[in-house]
Amino acid sequence: ESANEFQSEKDSLAEKLQETESRNQVLEAQLSDLEQRLESSQLEREAFHKSLRSLLELLDNKIFELTELRDTLAKLLEGS
Amino acid sequence: ESANEFQSEKDSLAEKLQETESRNQVLEAQLSDLEQRLESSQLEREAFHKSLRSLLELLDNKIFELTELRDTLAKLLEGS
Amino acid sequence: ESANEFQSEKDSLAEKLQETESRNQVLEAQLSDLEQRLESSQLEREAFHKSLRSLLELLDNKIFELTELRDTLAKLLEGS
Amino acid sequence: ESANEFQSEKDSLAEKLQETESRNQVLEAQLSDLEQRLESSQLEREAFHKSLRSLLELLDNKIFELTELRDTLAKLLEGS
Repeated sequence: ESANEFQSEKDSLAEKLQETESRNQVLEAQLSDLEQRLESSQLEREAFHKSLRSLLELLDNKIFELTELRDTLAKLLEGS
Repeated sequence: ESANEFQSEKDSLAEKLQETESRNQVLEAQLSDLEQRLESSQLEREAFHKSLRSLLELLDNKIFELTELRDTLAKLLEGS
Repeated sequence: ESANEFQSEKDSLAEKLQETESRNQVLEAQLSDLEQRLESSQLEREAFHKSLRSLLELLDNKIFELTELRDTLAKLLEGS
Repeated sequence: ESANEFQSEKDSLAEKLQETESRNQVLEAQLSDLEQRLESSQLEREAFHKSLRSLLELLDNKIFELTELRDTLAKLLEGS
């Protein structure tokens, strides 16, 4: 093998390495971005569910109060 | 007692009797009127209560349906 | 007319008068009783209606609160 | 530069390239996995929201029906 051939092979390898490292950085940036979106989406989901659980409790109260109202009406009808 | 005195007493009794019979007719008319008012008020009251019992059933249905809706929301929150 | 005939007519009138006055007292007692029942039925009816108006206000509040809950759910769904 | 030095540099580059390509494959697999999780989380979220919108419509109906019931009670109270 001549020295020129060696040099040309070395250059080709160095170029490929650089391309692959660049691609690596792009992928790592995409991964980091996706992880942040997933985490933020998870936090939103938890906040949303927490709000829905509060609504569920409120709905329970309203149903309870409507049932009391219903019982009062039933007693009024029995007693008169 | 003279015949005149007898006649005068008889006339006085006949007059009182007529007054009392008139008063009787007035009272009987008032009674009949009151009885009709009481009966009609009783019929109204029964119709009113019947309507209220229908409302009570409707309210029972609405409370039942709200409870189903509440259970659906609770299951959605558990399952997600 | 003989004195006996006069006396007999007078007695008959006095008897009828007494019967009619008795009947009068019975009718007046019945009237008074009916008037009391009508008045007490009227008072019951008013108390019943007052209770129903309170129930109506309570129902208004519950519907208002359910509507607020509904609006909160709608906003949660729009915002997420 | 000697032939040995050239060879050693070439080997070192080739080794680094292989490592970087391996890392690349790992990153691409992670990205693909995250993308799938994000997509599936998005689909779940949409299904969840669709169910909640159905619940909102049901709640609207229930509130409407309770309001009709309330109006019927109000009319009963006015008319009697």
